Amino acid sequence: MQTHFCSEYRSRTQPSDNAAQSSAADKSGLPAGTLIHIGTKHQSECKISVIQYNAETLIRHDITSISELQQLQNTELITWVNVDGLSNIGIIEGIGHELDIHPLVLEDILSTHQRPKLEEYDDFLYMVIKGISLDQKTNFCLQYEQISILLLTKYVITFKEKSDDTFDPIYSHLKNRNGRLRQYGSDYLAYVILDTIVDEYFVVEDSLDDVIDPLEDNILFNSSRDMLQTVQHIRRSLISMKRNISPLRELLATIQRIDTPLLQEKTLRYFGDVHDHVLRVTDSLESYRERISAMHDIYLSSISNKLNETMKILTIFASLFIPLTFIAGIYGMNFEYMPELKWRWAYPAIWVIFILISVGLLIFFKKKKWI
Amino acid sequence: MQTHFCSEYRSRTQPSDNAAQSSAADKSGLPAGTLIHIGTKHQSECKISVIQYNAETLIRHDITSISELQQLQNTELITWVNVDGLSNIGIIEGIGHELDIHPLVLEDILSTHQRPKLEEYDDFLYMVIKGISLDQKTNFCLQYEQISILLLTKYVITFKEKSDDTFDPIYSHLKNRNGRLRQYGSDYLAYVILDTIVDEYFVVEDSLDDVIDPLEDNILFNSSRDMLQTVQHIRRSLISMKRNISPLRELLATIQRIDTPLLQEKTLRYFGDVHDHVLRVTDSLESYRERISAMHDIYLSSISNKLNETMKILTIFASLFIPLTFIAGIYGMNFEYMPELKWRWAYPAIWVIFILISVGLLIFFKKKKWI
Amino acid sequence: MQTHFCSEYRSRTQPSDNAAQSSAADKSGLPAGTLIHIGTKHQSECKISVIQYNAETLIRHDITSISELQQLQNTELITWVNVDGLSNIGIIEGIGHELDIHPLVLEDILSTHQRPKLEEYDDFLYMVIKGISLDQKTNFCLQYEQISILLLTKYVITFKEKSDDTFDPIYSHLKNRNGRLRQYGSDYLAYVILDTIVDEYFVVEDSLDDVIDPLEDNILFNSSRDMLQTVQHIRRSLISMKRNISPLRELLATIQRIDTPLLQEKTLRYFGDVHDHVLRVTDSLESYRERISAMHDIYLSSISNKLNETMKILTIFASLFIPLTFIAGIYGMNFEYMPELKWRWAYPAIWVIFILISVGLLIFFKKKKWI
Amino acid sequence: MQTHFCSEYRSRTQPSDNAAQSSAADKSGLPAGTLIHIGTKHQSECKISVIQYNAETLIRHDITSISELQQLQNTELITWVNVDGLSNIGIIEGIGHELDIHPLVLEDILSTHQRPKLEEYDDFLYMVIKGISLDQKTNFCLQYEQISILLLTKYVITFKEKSDDTFDPIYSHLKNRNGRLRQYGSDYLAYVILDTIVDEYFVVEDSLDDVIDPLEDNILFNSSRDMLQTVQHIRRSLISMKRNISPLRELLATIQRIDTPLLQEKTLRYFGDVHDHVLRVTDSLESYRERISAMHDIYLSSISNKLNETMKILTIFASLFIPLTFIAGIYGMNFEYMPELKWRWAYPAIWVIFILISVGLLIFFKKKKWI
Amino acid sequence: MQTHFCSEYRSRTQPSDNAAQSSAADKSGLPAGTLIHIGTKHQSECKISVIQYNAETLIRHDITSISELQQLQNTELITWVNVDGLSNIGIIEGIGHELDIHPLVLEDILSTHQRPKLEEYDDFLYMVIKGISLDQKTNFCLQYEQISILLLTKYVITFKEKSDDTFDPIYSHLKNRNGRLRQYGSDYLAYVILDTIVDEYFVVEDSLDDVIDPLEDNILFNSSRDMLQTVQHIRRSLISMKRNISPLRELLATIQRIDTPLLQEKTLRYFGDVHDHVLRVTDSLESYRERISAMHDIYLSSISNKLNETMKILTIFASLFIPLTFIAGIYGMNFEYMPELKWRWAYPAIWVIFILISVGLLIFFKKKKWI
Repeated sequence: MQTHFCSEYRSRTQPSDNAAQSSAADKSGLPAGTLIHIGTKHQSECKISVIQYNAETLIRHDITSISELQQLQNTELITWVNVDGLSNIGIIEGIGHELDIHPLVLEDILSTHQRPKLEEYDDFLYMVIKGISLDQKTNFCLQYEQISILLLTKYVITFKEKSDDTFDPIYSHLKNRNGRLRQYGSDYLAYVILDTIVDEYFVVEDSLDDVIDPLEDNILFNSSRDMLQTVQHIRRSLISMKRNISPLRELLATIQRIDTPLLQEKTLRYFGDVHDHVLRVTDSLESYRERISAMHDIYLSSISNKLNETMKILTIFASLFIPLTFIAGIYGMNFEYMPELKWRWAYPAIWVIFILISVGLLIFFKKKKWI
Repeated sequence: MQTHFCSEYRSRTQPSDNAAQSSAADKSGLPAGTLIHIGTKHQSECKISVIQYNAETLIRHDITSISELQQLQNTELITWVNVDGLSNIGIIEGIGHELDIHPLVLEDILSTHQRPKLEEYDDFLYMVIKGISLDQKTNFCLQYEQISILLLTKYVITFKEKSDDTFDPIYSHLKNRNGRLRQYGSDYLAYVILDTIVDEYFVVEDSLDDVIDPLEDNILFNSSRDMLQTVQHIRRSLISMKRNISPLRELLATIQRIDTPLLQEKTLRYFGDVHDHVLRVTDSLESYRERISAMHDIYLSSISNKLNETMKILTIFASLFIPLTFIAGIYGMNFEYMPELKWRWAYPAIWVIFILISVGLLIFFKKKKWI
Repeated sequence: MQTHFCSEYRSRTQPSDNAAQSSAADKSGLPAGTLIHIGTKHQSECKISVIQYNAETLIRHDITSISELQQLQNTELITWVNVDGLSNIGIIEGIGHELDIHPLVLEDILSTHQRPKLEEYDDFLYMVIKGISLDQKTNFCLQYEQISILLLTKYVITFKEKSDDTFDPIYSHLKNRNGRLRQYGSDYLAYVILDTIVDEYFVVEDSLDDVIDPLEDNILFNSSRDMLQTVQHIRRSLISMKRNISPLRELLATIQRIDTPLLQEKTLRYFGDVHDHVLRVTDSLESYRERISAMHDIYLSSISNKLNETMKILTIFASLFIPLTFIAGIYGMNFEYMPELKWRWAYPAIWVIFILISVGLLIFFKKKKWI
Repeated sequence: MQTHFCSEYRSRTQPSDNAAQSSAADKSGLPAGTLIHIGTKHQSECKISVIQYNAETLIRHDITSISELQQLQNTELITWVNVDGLSNIGIIEGIGHELDIHPLVLEDILSTHQRPKLEEYDDFLYMVIKGISLDQKTNFCLQYEQISILLLTKYVITFKEKSDDTFDPIYSHLKNRNGRLRQYGSDYLAYVILDTIVDEYFVVEDSLDDVIDPLEDNILFNSSRDMLQTVQHIRRSLISMKRNISPLRELLATIQRIDTPLLQEKTLRYFGDVHDHVLRVTDSLESYRERISAMHDIYLSSISNKLNETMKILTIFASLFIPLTFIAGIYGMNFEYMPELKWRWAYPAIWVIFILISVGLLIFFKKKKWI
Repeated sequence: MQTHFCSEYRSRTQPSDNAAQSSAADKSGLPAGTLIHIGTKHQSECKISVIQYNAETLIRHDITSISELQQLQNTELITWVNVDGLSNIGIIEGIGHELDIHPLVLEDILSTHQRPKLEEYDDFLYMVIKGISLDQKTNFCLQYEQISILLLTKYVITFKEKSDDTFDPIYSHLKNRNGRLRQYGSDYLAYVILDTIVDEYFVVEDSLDDVIDPLEDNILFNSSRDMLQTVQHIRRSLISMKRNISPLRELLATIQRIDTPLLQEKTLRYFGDVHDHVLRVTDSLESYRERISAMHDIYLSSISNKLNETMKILTIFASLFIPLTFIAGIYGMNFEYMPELKWRWAYPAIWVIFILISVGLLIFFKKKKWI
């Protein structure tokens, strides 16, 4: 009877008894500074893709070990390293060592329950942001993925929990030799990555519309329990989306304010554009939240209305026939001396009484606007 | 049975399966920087009207191509270009190229799901603002339209989604040779445009009053399902209005603070006046929201009250006649040895008992204040 | 059946089909800068009273035209011009011209839907504030009036929508030759005017107490529909009061901060005192709002409680007699072969059964704490 | 039936028809600057106690007139003047004149409806703070008292509405010759006074715990109307406490920030300590508010649950016996030609039918988990 | 019937009639500056452990008196003194005297109802923070413990209410000679202590998930009273957690901002990391709060739904059989002249009528979608 909404979704966002998952709490007994992967493990191996480009050149390498990465160092080109899957701690440690990344950052990359945040270090910026995708459109099933971005002068390193097609638009974008992406620096690449992730939010928002609009139209007329379940499911989705998206506003406000040679003046405007997008998404989430909350009120009123109607029908039937039944009962008594029983017109007379009482009560109910 | 409120309204503000509509989500796979029109397409062609004026002269051209626009350049006059309809991307690109507009701005003009915002560029200001109009007054049906304003030293360019009469008051205002509008610069024209759009909000607010006031008076006495539907509809309208209007407060606070040669000192005071108007509208929206929310509470209480009354009637009828029917039932039994049946005064006595029980119960209900 | 609360009140605060009223929306088609009176017209003529005073002298003139006002110019004395009624636009224009008032201010004076606000101009301060008075104390009927105050070095000009006794305490105060009012400058007069208006709020607050306190005591025991109506009415009054009073906090915080020669150091302390009063009023409004909202919860619980009790009575009666009636019904059947009917002690036995069942059920209901 | 909670409390915090009470509203017609006592008059005479001390000396005088006070001036000692009772305006005026207190402060001391606040004057600080005490612990009955504190270099003047034992701990504290209080200046005395008043809040908080904890445990199982009344009473108490305590946070934050020779650096830390206490109290009030609000939700659910159970019992009884009674009714009809009546096994058969129907319905109800 | 949730928990967080407990209120009569232990006394003796370390050395002493502590002074090593149990005031006074701690700090250490806070003194930092642990996982029973941290140049002193295993991870961490903890200063030790305490919050959060997730899935289908009790219990736990955790955000924001030689630049980053953790916890608490509140709405709707269904069944049964019973009653009357009784086909005819009425009503209920 109970429809299972997104059983997948549960195991990804909340700790369960899944063996392949370790929570922040599990780490509480370990000395700070030990690198372990906290969160659901999505895949057993890491995939590393390295893209190097400038206005003229574009090279892509799919490598599997950190040593290959070291051979690819090239100061002429902008290097984008994308790591899909966090299970191979060696690779993350290797990259950290290569680029002199603060150990706390490496810990945060591996712990996939981070809040979206921006941290400024001497020679790099560290961003954490949540990718959201729809698993099944029909049941509105959300999937979250933590994406870490390291921005250096000539490098952008991204870490994703699993390999999916989120970054495909960027790859095709890069192929366009005259695109801004090929002309600008690594900061513009970081912007394009952020923008691509935030654009996914709009896809989610659109399917929310597809779910909420018909719900809102129907809830007044067809208040079933399934509907209540859907409302509850959307409410939970909105709460988790808000939690994962709203810190982005602060992140993007900060990125426009900080004074760092890593970000060029002309790129800031683009980050401002992503900021606007995020504000639009959070405005929408707030609207949805209000609409869902209003829907609940409507639902309650609607049930009460129905109860009222049911009770009116019961009351009409009961109040109409119970007195009549009593009267019939009277003349069903077996007393020897009941003069009315002998009367010639008693039986027609009792029918007249029945009809008068019924009409009287129906007029009363009519006056009460029940019928 | 289900009244259709504003089916129009839906297709304009939310993505639907309408073929002529493309949402932000559709763009998520395209490289950033490609100009496409995002949102419902309201009309197939663009209408461009160019008005050039100073204190002495006033010329109006209705043109259809970007080349005609180029011939109209005139540094003596203030030029106001209004573009109705966004389907012809060539025109927007042409204007962008002509006036050296940042590509992000052109993208934003074409994407009609923007939040109201103000962006300051080196030689122009870019404002996005939402026009709100009433489609049908009876059903309180709102229409939103995105209006983009570019303010340059001698130019004001406005982009509207469709051609309507929103700007008519400005045209007639311009004809007044001694009006401030003809004396002041392009920044004053931008103010007049903003003011005209915000004045439309008051029209909407007034018809909200016309809907909410009778609703508030009736909800206590006449709590039908139609009323609930209207309340729900207004609630949704308020949520969407808030979302489209409230960012304007920030926009107008910013415009009074920024330091740009595009805005003259004496015009700032006028923008402050629009700011006050927007504050008034948002205050009203908040009041309406509180009143609608209070109305819902009243509605629920009112239904509960009615249920209570229904149940009292049922209880009175049932409690009164069920015991009497039982007594009648006793003497309807066919036992051979029932001494009462033979008694001479049994029948009148049973009537006395009936009456005593009824009176007793009625006194009990009276004491409970049910009758 | 429906009590009419404050029909007066409605027509003053909200646009209606009243012919003598023009709303902000009506103005939306007019060129900015045209002076027209927006709001309900309370009276057809303007009354102008001019009071000129210093420590030694106090002169009062009741004039009717702007030309008389011009003759009264006197730089030795502080001149307080009070205009009751806004229908004569000529007078407002005349004063504006005389004292060189910015056209936007004149527009705001005439538009009586302003938010309370403070505007600083080069040589004057402009304040808008709402006077609140009680029309009928029994029904708690509020009247709002917009009062505009212009403060110049030697002048205070006040504009009221209608003539009433709001300013009478100031007139009597002025007669006291040794009062601070006679010693201090025009800024102190502006303070006294503000203080007098804010003191009226306390009168309203006190009668709110007179309404809310008995309501709160009774709602648990006597939850009638009238009570619900009163609660709804007070809720609406609180919403409108909040809307009209709360911007005053900002106004008075600003007035203590601005640096202008119009306000003397020693007067600022007095404005701080009014600020405290306004904070007290808004604190109270917030408390009332919470109490009204709590009352609604209580009301709902109270109805539900009552319903519960009603249902218990119904259930007791029905559950008690329905089984008994069934048993009586059995022995009312006319089967030929029903051995019990012939038994000698069947009838007394059936009474024993009746009593046993009744007692059993009563014990059951007792255990459920229903009786 | 209606328990009277704190009738005392009402007359103290809200204006009533009590003759001995004058409200802020009563003053609205008087010229600003007239000293009158606003609020409930708690006692007819003033009691003045003067304590003078330094590290070596401690003298206490109980005086009754202002002239005695003038004789006690002594610049060697710190002088603490405590005035209990505000009815004797002469005394307050006298002290005001003696110490050159701003007239607005004297007005505020006499008006006992002040918000807690801090005002900085050239040579003194003025604080208003509310003392809260429990009148009856069983009914949780709060008493508010306005305490005004004037802090000068060598003087602390306190004004209380009535004489009670609030300051007794300070008196005994003063007797300790080696206590910090005797070593430090008048600012430390002011701190001790504030601390003593705030400590009283914890007493109130503790008895709130004593009331709320059992309530929370019982409301799920025993949702009577008395409980609802208690919940409502506590809610009101919390609203009034919040109103009287929360402005203290600002007061104490300000006192640590202001730069005045009246407060020594080393005393500021102590005011910070009181600040922490007030934050703790306001945190608690917020927690209580949330718990009370949650309790109301629980209460409503609990009533609905009960109603549901009542209805189940009614439905089981009615649905079980109504069909059976109908069948019995059929064979109670007196038609001449009813073949079943003659059948030999009809009566036992009908019993079989009765039992089958009952068992069927009971299984149905069992399946619905009603029994 | 009433399950006892965490009776332990009550006595720890709220004052009760427990003899071993003294509340803040008890202190209100004592002179400020007297050291007494306020709060539940968890154990009768104090346990002092002293750990001294640098990169090379690590010594641990378990001592019982303050004199032993004095002998352990060593400026070469970092000394961490941990005091478990606050009942021995002499020890706290001794340490205070030894290290010249401000008396207010000693008072705060002993009063275990503090809000988490940070205080900066000339030569030390004082932090109060609440440790949270789970007593029983099944009933979600929280235990709070106040932990005070004093950070000096070479010393860290921690005071805990009782001895438990909270700090065990730090001890094992210290044994790692190459760990950052051994290399860095006392500020890093303070960070590790804070981090260890905050990590415990995640354990609590995880078990909250374990309780809330199944609750959320079941509440729609199985709305029992036990569930309501659990919801209420979690709500209270969330309120108390929020109260104890949320001030930490401010504490950790402040610690990164203050300019003190006690904190090294490189350690600040680590405090920033703890700050992120606390933000994550408070975000989660907020999400839980919203989910619990949504659950309550669902619960109410669910009960109303059930009531509706119950009433439909009752109405169907009653409305179906009451009219039929009436008809049967008519022909059970004993009038002498009832022609129908004599008719040959009357009895079959009456059955036809019975069936027609039943079918008609069933169609009616079908149309209403009740069956």
